[in-house]
Amino acid sequence: MPAFSTIASDPASRARAGLLETAHGTVATPAFVPLASTASVRGLVAEEVLALGFEMILGNTFHLHLRPGGELIEGLGGLHRFMGWERAIITDSGGFQVFSLGHGTVADEIKGRRGGGRQGAILAIDEEGVRFRSHIDGGERFITPELSMEVQHQLGSDIVLAFDECTPFNVERDYTARSTERTHRWLSRCLEWRAQHGDASLFYGIVQGGVHADLRAESVAAVAASACDGIAVGGSLGRDKEQMYGVVEWCTRDLAALAPERPRHLLGIGEIDDLIWGVELGIDTFDCAMPTRLARHGVALVPDPATRWRLELDRPRWRDAPEPLVEGCPCPACSAGLSRAYLHFLARGGELTGAHLLTLHNLTFIAALMRELREAILTGRFAEVSARLRAGHAPAYGSP
Amino acid sequence: MPAFSTIASDPASRARAGLLETAHGTVATPAFVPLASTASVRGLVAEEVLALGFEMILGNTFHLHLRPGGELIEGLGGLHRFMGWERAIITDSGGFQVFSLGHGTVADEIKGRRGGGRQGAILAIDEEGVRFRSHIDGGERFITPELSMEVQHQLGSDIVLAFDECTPFNVERDYTARSTERTHRWLSRCLEWRAQHGDASLFYGIVQGGVHADLRAESVAAVAASACDGIAVGGSLGRDKEQMYGVVEWCTRDLAALAPERPRHLLGIGEIDDLIWGVELGIDTFDCAMPTRLARHGVALVPDPATRWRLELDRPRWRDAPEPLVEGCPCPACSAGLSRAYLHFLARGGELTGAHLLTLHNLTFIAALMRELREAILTGRFAEVSARLRAGHAPAYGSP
Repeated sequence: MPAFSTIASDPASRARAGLLETAHGTVATPAFVPLASTASVRGLVAEEVLALGFEMILGNTFHLHLRPGGELIEGLGGLHRFMGWERAIITDSGGFQVFSLGHGTVADEIKGRRGGGRQGAILAIDEEGVRFRSHIDGGERFITPELSMEVQHQLGSDIVLAFDECTPFNVERDYTARSTERTHRWLSRCLEWRAQHGDASLFYGIVQGGVHADLRAESVAAVAASACDGIAVGGSLGRDKEQMYGVVEWCTRDLAALAPERPRHLLGIGEIDDLIWGVELGIDTFDCAMPTRLARHGVALVPDPATRWRLELDRPRWRDAPEPLVEGCPCPACSAGLSRAYLHFLARGGELTGAHLLTLHNLTFIAALMRELREAILTGRFAEVSARLRAGHAPAYGSP
Repeated sequence: MPAFSTIASDPASRARAGLLETAHGTVATPAFVPLASTASVRGLVAEEVLALGFEMILGNTFHLHLRPGGELIEGLGGLHRFMGWERAIITDSGGFQVFSLGHGTVADEIKGRRGGGRQGAILAIDEEGVRFRSHIDGGERFITPELSMEVQHQLGSDIVLAFDECTPFNVERDYTARSTERTHRWLSRCLEWRAQHGDASLFYGIVQGGVHADLRAESVAAVAASACDGIAVGGSLGRDKEQMYGVVEWCTRDLAALAPERPRHLLGIGEIDDLIWGVELGIDTFDCAMPTRLARHGVALVPDPATRWRLELDRPRWRDAPEPLVEGCPCPACSAGLSRAYLHFLARGGELTGAHLLTLHNLTFIAALMRELREAILTGRFAEVSARLRAGHAPAYGSP
């Protein structure tokens, strides 16, 4: 039985609503996947994440491998049991994080921004894998496609990602080409490990190829030709949103032709406009640190494209503002009528309760947005609804 | 109608169960009052605190006066509305905090421990009040009994505390005597302010007198002779627990004679054995940073007097321990079967979810303990139940 089934499509775009079947329940798509990189959605208890309506979270192979280790988590019954989360878990392979050590902050690079400057700790990259220094204990480690598969198996992941090199934006085309080819060879090794060891999870290949149309096309073709259950789009997506949407568009156009029945995940992207565009371009699932990270920095998501959907609560203008963040929002802050003034006060003071309330608010916003996009596809109103959301209408807050 | 009514007493001790009526609901006593010093119980949302079964929290006049200010909170409808808490609030007067600036860490001093060393910022103490430097903006401020009353009025506190000097342990007897007398004069000024301005709240005087039996007796007599609605025991309680229980015993013995019908609050004390002793000595309500502060430092409360009821999760021995913190505990961590290994992992990583889970666990433990002590008084089993709890039995976890 295929893992993914499309139940409705928008005739005017690639947007589709589907059901993704995993060993830990069904994920209704399109869906946002909150980050639980180190076995927790920062500040939240698993039952709170569930109550928000999320059906899948993302764990981080790199971080969990370094601490506490896949073996320890396996010995305690796997990641689901370890963190008390009974629904689906997708795990990234560690590729993104290990290459971040060498390429500065890959997140900046991927979005085409210069900067970074964090001391790299990659010691060597070769065909076999990557040798690096652990930021936890300073010890030397070696990660390979096989080790990534083994750790994800130990974690008991429902959706395993292939081990890839996440090539940054600011490298030569030639480097990207060679790296992408190696990523394809690593994909084969991942599949071989799985064939040898047996694993009930779903497996996603990762499309690389940087911002180069021909490399992306080759990568989509290679990944689609493999025996993967789903496909993730990763790597550098360009210098700005226009280029990013262009790269995603190439990928999903070819995926629609070559692997129409397989689910598509967009790695590490999740600003509000990106989510709407991504759904339109045919992406089924997204993960991103944004909504939870912003919350910890005192930023609330609000329906306002003029501010990139961000309300910075530490600004003086909110000091005595009595209004809630978003009228009608069912999150604990808005439904209790808590004022922007109170959230300003908490943000300024660095209070844990502020981060907690904003995390709940931001994830409530994202959950409602994704639900509304899905509903729109199911009811044949995607163009209208997506345009309204882009223009700054608040999503309808139904029950999760 | 008196604010407090005793509904059952233990014949063999001073322990009593009562009902404390406030403008925001009834508080069943004996009760623990979680700290919400800066308008939040650290990391929790008001509805979580309510769900734990608490009926009153403690706000901090000193901190809220400095930021965001009583006027701002009053303008937004008062502290209850500001923080979304609809039940009772008791506010300390600011005395403890302002004198902490001068006396090092008063919390250490009060418990008789040496140390502190924080740079004092009291500029002058005189009959009128205390001049000090704000740690928020460096500005000079002057706090008086009248200002403390005004700010607590602005906050809309249900139980207002008198402005007192919290005398530390390591001062001369003569200083304590003079300070205690001034505290009594300040008590009169607080009452005068309230008589002039009208205030529907309850008002508690504070007993001082350090570790000196005669000064404590004089202070109890002075406070009991005033028109206060309730009485708090404050200040230095001695160098160790034995001396502390002795000081509290003097106070409640005299209070039982001079003001039997008035509620008694013990300021800033709340370790597990202290709570059990305090109830036995006739204390009705307690506040303390301990359960929430320990949680943020990775310490869980467990029924074990040998470790002072503390389980330090960052110790290596818990690295792969599969058992929950406390069998049968209904907190989110224990009820989800989360292991000590997971909580060790979160504590080691400084993860917000760890602090959140332990805060909920510790407050669940304290709420259950206080409920069990109350039940024991109501059913005539106080001696037996308190002995069992002291010996390390877990409290029965009923529904809040």
